[in-house]
Amino acid sequence: MQRKIAAEVLGTFVLVLGGCGSAVLAGDVIGAQGVAIAFGLTVLVMAFAVGPISGGHFNPAVTIGLIVGKRFETKDAPYYIVAQVAGAILAGAVLYLIASGLDGFDAADGFAANGYDDHSPAEYSLLAGLVAEVVLTAVFLIVIMGATSKSASAGFAPIAIGLALTLIHLVSIPVTNTSVNPARSTGVALFVGEGWAIGQLWLFWVAPIVGAAGGAMIWRYLLGDAKDMAD
Amino acid sequence: MQRKIAAEVLGTFVLVLGGCGSAVLAGDVIGAQGVAIAFGLTVLVMAFAVGPISGGHFNPAVTIGLIVGKRFETKDAPYYIVAQVAGAILAGAVLYLIASGLDGFDAADGFAANGYDDHSPAEYSLLAGLVAEVVLTAVFLIVIMGATSKSASAGFAPIAIGLALTLIHLVSIPVTNTSVNPARSTGVALFVGEGWAIGQLWLFWVAPIVGAAGGAMIWRYLLGDAKDMAD
Amino acid sequence: MQRKIAAEVLGTFVLVLGGCGSAVLAGDVIGAQGVAIAFGLTVLVMAFAVGPISGGHFNPAVTIGLIVGKRFETKDAPYYIVAQVAGAILAGAVLYLIASGLDGFDAADGFAANGYDDHSPAEYSLLAGLVAEVVLTAVFLIVIMGATSKSASAGFAPIAIGLALTLIHLVSIPVTNTSVNPARSTGVALFVGEGWAIGQLWLFWVAPIVGAAGGAMIWRYLLGDAKDMAD
Amino acid sequence: MQRKIAAEVLGTFVLVLGGCGSAVLAGDVIGAQGVAIAFGLTVLVMAFAVGPISGGHFNPAVTIGLIVGKRFETKDAPYYIVAQVAGAILAGAVLYLIASGLDGFDAADGFAANGYDDHSPAEYSLLAGLVAEVVLTAVFLIVIMGATSKSASAGFAPIAIGLALTLIHLVSIPVTNTSVNPARSTGVALFVGEGWAIGQLWLFWVAPIVGAAGGAMIWRYLLGDAKDMAD
Repeated sequence: MQRKIAAEVLGTFVLVLGGCGSAVLAGDVIGAQGVAIAFGLTVLVMAFAVGPISGGHFNPAVTIGLIVGKRFETKDAPYYIVAQVAGAILAGAVLYLIASGLDGFDAADGFAANGYDDHSPAEYSLLAGLVAEVVLTAVFLIVIMGATSKSASAGFAPIAIGLALTLIHLVSIPVTNTSVNPARSTGVALFVGEGWAIGQLWLFWVAPIVGAAGGAMIWRYLLGDAKDMAD
Repeated sequence: MQRKIAAEVLGTFVLVLGGCGSAVLAGDVIGAQGVAIAFGLTVLVMAFAVGPISGGHFNPAVTIGLIVGKRFETKDAPYYIVAQVAGAILAGAVLYLIASGLDGFDAADGFAANGYDDHSPAEYSLLAGLVAEVVLTAVFLIVIMGATSKSASAGFAPIAIGLALTLIHLVSIPVTNTSVNPARSTGVALFVGEGWAIGQLWLFWVAPIVGAAGGAMIWRYLLGDAKDMAD
Repeated sequence: MQRKIAAEVLGTFVLVLGGCGSAVLAGDVIGAQGVAIAFGLTVLVMAFAVGPISGGHFNPAVTIGLIVGKRFETKDAPYYIVAQVAGAILAGAVLYLIASGLDGFDAADGFAANGYDDHSPAEYSLLAGLVAEVVLTAVFLIVIMGATSKSASAGFAPIAIGLALTLIHLVSIPVTNTSVNPARSTGVALFVGEGWAIGQLWLFWVAPIVGAAGGAMIWRYLLGDAKDMAD
Repeated sequence: MQRKIAAEVLGTFVLVLGGCGSAVLAGDVIGAQGVAIAFGLTVLVMAFAVGPISGGHFNPAVTIGLIVGKRFETKDAPYYIVAQVAGAILAGAVLYLIASGLDGFDAADGFAANGYDDHSPAEYSLLAGLVAEVVLTAVFLIVIMGATSKSASAGFAPIAIGLALTLIHLVSIPVTNTSVNPARSTGVALFVGEGWAIGQLWLFWVAPIVGAAGGAMIWRYLLGDAKDMAD
């Protein structure tokens, strides 16, 4: 378990440092497309690097979805989720330190936090953000369940899963700045220094977890076969 | 067959939600290149996720092309095509719901529908759109037939096929907004709310299907070998 | 041999239609980066699709380089090179037809032809163009020789080779519009309708072939081992 | 050893020609995102091409990190590091030659050199640059150690490692122009022709090496298992 915890801390650290870091440090030169690619690559590379150790969740919604999908043990979830949130907060701190090296940096400008209404990048409503986060996290779990099922080609799962995260960001950065990952949202919200980021954080726990559970159930009842479910 | 239908509904749902969704929600920040990447990734990730279940067509033209190429049974085609169109319309509805969360949203602005003449993104003619859709869908089928042939490296097909769709979009978004997929075209045209999108929809059924059949025949008569055709 | 010729015609057709097509039809919305990705994807997807049939050269410089590298038979080269040039010209014609569907289209604006001095996209000199084309084609051949050597991981070669072509375009589009492929250069130069494109075409036969031969010799004498050379 | 040296010279040559070359020759048309993709692709393609020969380090920090991680022999390191620096300088020279073919070229404008404070692209401080280079090189080594460990899927390592370098550039181009590779920094700094590039070069030797050693230790003590360490 110790190696698994280290893998989840580190993977989520890279997810937030790489994904949110690209947005905060380089967003104005790489654009939303570059940020979408960065988020996907964090999962792709860390799933290759430490996936064989912990399974490569890096995301509390994924951990909970995989429990619903009968791919993960409930008793291990608390360790994973604490590790993920810790890694995300650590990354938020390192990113804050680097970003502070630029004159005029102010985390209140957003710091890649997720939001809705006035704090959605394009001012999408709470309902739009909720639907987007639920549906896209459900899609994410279906990809994860499918790409790691017994009938999938071994070895390709990190590519499928990482690029699914890029796809999700290409769709929804303007809506909520894209969470689908409560740890990622928490890791940067703490550093914004204004009330709204913490105040809206609930949505980015609730919606991804609901969506992940829904996606896992869709897989189990509509897509998985007996062989897959016997696992 | 039930699992196959679910896989086709879901895969086409993701194709339209991810591809058209990136255009409608994020097109102004990710550009045509970002939309092209998104469309390709929808097929790449869903072919990894549910390809082992249904073959991962997500496109009536692909289903018909694979019949012509002797890779798919005619009797199963109606189930697949209905599933694909249903998944696309469902995605159009979810996308409409999310997009409506932005003040000033108006599906009449396009909603990622395909078109020609005045409704081509760069105002390309009907003939240009017809040629582009026929030729590019033929290329798409050749890639699909080749990447899934017996002599191909197992496992890589979703990468080849997904990135072929990205390539096709990189070429032809200005021409027709790129269809090569009648379900994708139908799934959004229904929501545009103006007559032209439905009125021009015929082209995006006819041209992709003609191209797909042509591509499959090119494969069969010029490229496939005896071993491949014995399949 | 008939299937091999068909594969080379078709692969080079897709290379020019996809690569030059993205530049001509969509260059102003996808930028040089999008064009670079498109060129790489043409080779990636067609090498997966028809590589097992012909080896997937799609480029006279590659064919000649592989002869120098002792991976290809001299006697088959004429068939391959004629097929490649024919496929490229066919693609140029289809692209011309599609592009003509836009009011104001004029192939004299460039039509993705390669050039130097006044006809280099950023007006680089002949010497700069020569060095860039020779060195980059040498790199391309080294990647091809390496990725298809006996010690390489089977199956990944199309990814390595296709993305090498993207890399080459990311570096040199401003210098010569990037050739490294005499067939690609010929296929569009014929349609420009002004003397310069044909007049400068010699460089894009000489430089890629010299570079390809040089790259193959670097592989043979400095990198390949006895096992590899026994092939 | 001769083949290994040639592989390291060549791989680092391509890294600098492709990565720095894309920035110098095409940076204004492909942007920071295009440069980030180019750097990653240099490692991806050359690791496929010559990785089986030398291991594909192309970077003194990687070589030193792999010694700390017990994956490489100390006695071979001097050969590798000299080869890497030589390949990088050779690439700098070729790039200088090509770039000189454009009227108005002046290497003093930057020539893709790394820097901090006034010479950071966005004027980030020395501390920010130090933290970014140390942390990101540590991440790079963890990906390398993980993707090449015994439990990793054979064959995918070049994809994981190359795309990790793209990710690193997506985050940190504005901070230091991204080094994480002392050879890359040296290869272009020599050609800038102004004192600052050489004067700041120390940071891009110290920080990547410290980070690489740290990343390798994190792998060894927190992530690697007994089987992996017995290697």
